[in-house]
Amino acid sequence: MTTSPEFTCGLQVRWSDQDLNGHVNNARLMTLIEEVRLRAMVAWGAEPPGPSGPRVVRALDVTFDREVHFGEDVLGRAWITSIGRTSFTVRHELLQGGVLCLRSDAVIVNLSADDGRPTPMTDSLRAVLEAHAVPAPNSDADTPEGGEHS
Amino acid sequence: MTTSPEFTCGLQVRWSDQDLNGHVNNARLMTLIEEVRLRAMVAWGAEPPGPSGPRVVRALDVTFDREVHFGEDVLGRAWITSIGRTSFTVRHELLQGGVLCLRSDAVIVNLSADDGRPTPMTDSLRAVLEAHAVPAPNSDADTPEGGEHS
Amino acid sequence: MTTSPEFTCGLQVRWSDQDLNGHVNNARLMTLIEEVRLRAMVAWGAEPPGPSGPRVVRALDVTFDREVHFGEDVLGRAWITSIGRTSFTVRHELLQGGVLCLRSDAVIVNLSADDGRPTPMTDSLRAVLEAHAVPAPNSDADTPEGGEHS
Amino acid sequence: MTTSPEFTCGLQVRWSDQDLNGHVNNARLMTLIEEVRLRAMVAWGAEPPGPSGPRVVRALDVTFDREVHFGEDVLGRAWITSIGRTSFTVRHELLQGGVLCLRSDAVIVNLSADDGRPTPMTDSLRAVLEAHAVPAPNSDADTPEGGEHS
Repeated sequence: MTTSPEFTCGLQVRWSDQDLNGHVNNARLMTLIEEVRLRAMVAWGAEPPGPSGPRVVRALDVTFDREVHFGEDVLGRAWITSIGRTSFTVRHELLQGGVLCLRSDAVIVNLSADDGRPTPMTDSLRAVLEAHAVPAPNSDADTPEGGEHS
Repeated sequence: MTTSPEFTCGLQVRWSDQDLNGHVNNARLMTLIEEVRLRAMVAWGAEPPGPSGPRVVRALDVTFDREVHFGEDVLGRAWITSIGRTSFTVRHELLQGGVLCLRSDAVIVNLSADDGRPTPMTDSLRAVLEAHAVPAPNSDADTPEGGEHS
Repeated sequence: MTTSPEFTCGLQVRWSDQDLNGHVNNARLMTLIEEVRLRAMVAWGAEPPGPSGPRVVRALDVTFDREVHFGEDVLGRAWITSIGRTSFTVRHELLQGGVLCLRSDAVIVNLSADDGRPTPMTDSLRAVLEAHAVPAPNSDADTPEGGEHS
Repeated sequence: MTTSPEFTCGLQVRWSDQDLNGHVNNARLMTLIEEVRLRAMVAWGAEPPGPSGPRVVRALDVTFDREVHFGEDVLGRAWITSIGRTSFTVRHELLQGGVLCLRSDAVIVNLSADDGRPTPMTDSLRAVLEAHAVPAPNSDADTPEGGEHS
């Protein structure tokens, strides 16, 4: 039996997640992304940040493909796309009604509890990450279209 | 007399902006970024999104350099780094105590009110953007370190 | 067949709902209360606020009996406790792990779209409210303990 | 020289504080109330909750007199209206454009760090509260209109 490296969960959308534009606010979507990642790490049995130091978000890339609306739960997906010595990248996706609405890569850095500087991850954290890693099939496709203007 | 292309404003940090990690939450920082951009567009006299169609965030790149903490106001900065036919890029920065904490590029797309597809910006919006544009000095330096792991 | 006048729903708690005190923030609990009321009104088939005028919260009484924590969904309950000519009262409860954590009464006022002043509710809205009304068994028990100090 | 028992501060309203109704959301107003109380306690030199135990909100009474809108800072006011043995009441007000928008009483309970039960406040906390107490002039006027329907 094999388990999927990918974590999935359903997330409720709240009426208050909407902004004046009548869709779920962009910053609030970052909260949903955070929720998916957090639930993934718990489900995967990753040691909580602590003795071995805190873990912080160093960088975030987001592409908003479609609006998310109030009324239907969102499906969140997360997996690991790359693993370094002191940091790793989590890919997140949010779907609604079966349609991809948002893709986001977050670079998470493991910090030393002593001096707050990047510090190597423990072997156990690395093992968890490796069990849930799916290399990006095409790294070009990864690039948010942020830099191009029509 | 010349005016600076850059917009700056002070933003209060709320106690509730903090998360369990004892710093201002990453997603909440996106709310502060949004506030800077919105106040900049108003200060610059940009026509509000409307008849000419809504404007939406298509992509977001964020680099978190330092934690933001409760207790001191944040200085927000925003200017335009590139202008296309149907979209433009806003660079945002948040500083606290004179130290750069966060850089973020947001790609904003102008949509048609009719079919919701990207549509050319009006001349008046373009003029506002051009008056507040500062080309990125070194586009390589722009790239968040998202893709590299030590 | 009879239906219960009471509406119930499960609500996810998000990690970000917690504040520095390690429990779900009080103001955020008001967001959950709002979500319960909104979902109740939709489930009951209440006409959305609109032509007949907006509906606003005029007063809120809340008693916090127990902390709500991240990790387990919350059960929300709502029903109508009193109906006037231009306003009505919704009782909300939040439970976690079968334990009552919060009770709240919200007075909702029906406003005129013309002048924004309280205006009589439509017969159809009144009928919906009456179908979901449960008079408070003991109006003394209603009073939050706000005014008494030991 | 006398100092006013009342604390006042200016609070920024964020665009994202608005909900679909085009005004600052009710639950978000509770966040502003919390911010006023917190800043008051700091300004008054109240010992932070801690060794002597945490302090929690037990009850909240709110009357919404007028809508708060985005565009102008809010003036927050707070003072103490009653002091018991293990708890006290804070009165908060929010004004915008010189007009009272919201009144709220919060009952705060001092808890034992040992067993989480109400425990007497320290003399120093009591002294701080007494220095900022203004008895409600007319306790009838205190009652939110929650219980009455026209």
